[in-house]
Amino acid sequence: MQFVINRDYFVHSVQHVSKAISSRTTIPILTGIKIVADHEGVTLTGSDSDISIECFIPIEEDDQQLVQIIEEGSIVLQAKFFTEIVKKLPEDKVEIIVQDQFSTTLRSGSSVFNLNGLDPEEYPRLPQIEEENIFQIQNDLLKNIIRQTGFAVSTAETRPILTGVNWQVDNGLLTCTATDSHRLAMRKATIETNIDGLNFSNVVIPGKSLSELNKIIEDNSELLNIVVTENQILFKSKNLLFFSRLLDGNYPATNNMIPQHSKTEIYLETKGFLQAIERALLLSRDGKNNVVNLKTLGDGEIEITSVTPEIGKVTEKIVTKQINGEELRISFNGKNIIDALKIIESSEIKVSFTGAMSPFLVRPVDHENSLHLFSPVRTY
Amino acid sequence: MQFVINRDYFVHSVQHVSKAISSRTTIPILTGIKIVADHEGVTLTGSDSDISIECFIPIEEDDQQLVQIIEEGSIVLQAKFFTEIVKKLPEDKVEIIVQDQFSTTLRSGSSVFNLNGLDPEEYPRLPQIEEENIFQIQNDLLKNIIRQTGFAVSTAETRPILTGVNWQVDNGLLTCTATDSHRLAMRKATIETNIDGLNFSNVVIPGKSLSELNKIIEDNSELLNIVVTENQILFKSKNLLFFSRLLDGNYPATNNMIPQHSKTEIYLETKGFLQAIERALLLSRDGKNNVVNLKTLGDGEIEITSVTPEIGKVTEKIVTKQINGEELRISFNGKNIIDALKIIESSEIKVSFTGAMSPFLVRPVDHENSLHLFSPVRTY
Repeated sequence: MQFVINRDYFVHSVQHVSKAISSRTTIPILTGIKIVADHEGVTLTGSDSDISIECFIPIEEDDQQLVQIIEEGSIVLQAKFFTEIVKKLPEDKVEIIVQDQFSTTLRSGSSVFNLNGLDPEEYPRLPQIEEENIFQIQNDLLKNIIRQTGFAVSTAETRPILTGVNWQVDNGLLTCTATDSHRLAMRKATIETNIDGLNFSNVVIPGKSLSELNKIIEDNSELLNIVVTENQILFKSKNLLFFSRLLDGNYPATNNMIPQHSKTEIYLETKGFLQAIERALLLSRDGKNNVVNLKTLGDGEIEITSVTPEIGKVTEKIVTKQINGEELRISFNGKNIIDALKIIESSEIKVSFTGAMSPFLVRPVDHENSLHLFSPVRTY
Repeated sequence: MQFVINRDYFVHSVQHVSKAISSRTTIPILTGIKIVADHEGVTLTGSDSDISIECFIPIEEDDQQLVQIIEEGSIVLQAKFFTEIVKKLPEDKVEIIVQDQFSTTLRSGSSVFNLNGLDPEEYPRLPQIEEENIFQIQNDLLKNIIRQTGFAVSTAETRPILTGVNWQVDNGLLTCTATDSHRLAMRKATIETNIDGLNFSNVVIPGKSLSELNKIIEDNSELLNIVVTENQILFKSKNLLFFSRLLDGNYPATNNMIPQHSKTEIYLETKGFLQAIERALLLSRDGKNNVVNLKTLGDGEIEITSVTPEIGKVTEKIVTKQINGEELRISFNGKNIIDALKIIESSEIKVSFTGAMSPFLVRPVDHENSLHLFSPVRTY
């Protein structure tokens, strides 16, 4: 194998596929990046067997030559060193030559690296995906969905299914749900598809896969193809394939957890509410329980308090936009509320309570696409 | 005690004095910030007993009222919470009221914090400094000196004296030296003083004190007053006092370690040399020895190499500006060289060798104010 490649494109692609590579893998070949050069261009692959990422650099793009293939072939190179090396090479072009025994030379200007490669034949094949269930979402919308649900997945391995985000498609509507059983985030979005009656309900994508995907997809309005199979999901753009394993098991039915009626409704400015809870949390976060108390005061005001006996007490008063219904005292995990308020883009929210011991809802007032559900905390 | 204070000035001063506070102190009162309000303004103090910082906020500055004192007094408040709280308060002004039993109320807009304070009488007094040996340096020059020597102090506690930077003053010239016994950095600068015959040689300032000081002093050309006593140094500007303990013991005589003659002299572009060593280090840093080899090639070229058998080899060729003297092969700790090259501001350096087994010198070619000395590494 021998080729000369544009360094910036190469760095970009190497960084993309590196996101799939884990230094803690038990399969030695997966610590490497697979590089394949053929007459169409150069293909890079990285994988930790849960996530696999393939990046393609074509011979030519927009009339600019990106790759010059001198001899086709393939190699696997240690990702850890390779990524750093490629970033620091001195010239705009990099030449890669594989000799006997997978010994590989990288040359750029007066800088020459001789690296011990690995046998590309040992590298596992990527999943074979049947493109039956295929639909499209805009890149920026997908990034939004990931940001607005991914934070709420469970980080505990006690219920592995909750470490993923549940995706359901029904009648052209995608519903994404994440919960760690103390809080739940849901986001709906319209998808595009040519498949009649596309419909699935138990697709659970690992939270980690989505957060890596979010780092790679660009923030633009181009359509991304998404293919769902029994145990894999594939995200596909022009020069990029992103595969993720799906989680095994049944995602809990979350629909019936969402209260349909409320006894107290509070309309609030998102930012003022967020900042008040952030201040309240300054004293309670050290005790690790993050408990914050809320109580209605009449006159359209609410009071947020938090107490840590050794340190002190904080009291915040907030003038709401409107309060409907019963008086209320409730305690909750302030950190969970902050996580949600930070990703709500609307300037005003509605908080709906059905009593001090029941879960409550936070929703933006200007659309119905998202909601957040929280369990209260018992403080007596 | 009761006063109202401009929040931004207060935050700024609280952040300054916090730099002296360690959460690992064994003296409970030192986890707090001391606040004193009198008819001139508000004084804040933080200390870990090695470093003490005092910040003063006057009643008025540049015709702007900064503080309104309602009742004089003092209190000590937990630094950890206090700093965060003050930063997050909602309004431009903060009111602080101390009631019985050191119970303290912070009020800003609709936000109220009740904090348990500590007895200010328990707070240790700051060192009493006799202003006999006093001189001045420009803020920006002092920052430069700290940056160009502080990195070379020892981080090992085996020879505590080497964890500090040695300051000598002789005939209006300040010489600062730091060494961890493998490398040495020296920086000279002219000082201003009214004291006849100001002269000292065994002042050793802890590296940590200097790095905290560097974070606080502003990057401008104002003169900073420096007072040296037997066991303390004081840095003094308009509203700031920074005290540091000096290290006990005798700093080693470093003057006679610096070779006066050389057998090989190489003139190089700083940036190209730095980048070549950074690339060479990519392969050797994992073995933790950071060994990089240099050899003269003739034709004014040098070769930099580094080998890690399991991973591979890197070879860098550099066209020098000039090579004088004998051919040379030498090995050294590449990371130490990088540390020095990064803080050298000159675009060209001169490297002077006296053989493969002797320490060598790196100096900027355009001035004589600084030098860096390195021990070679034996590789056979």
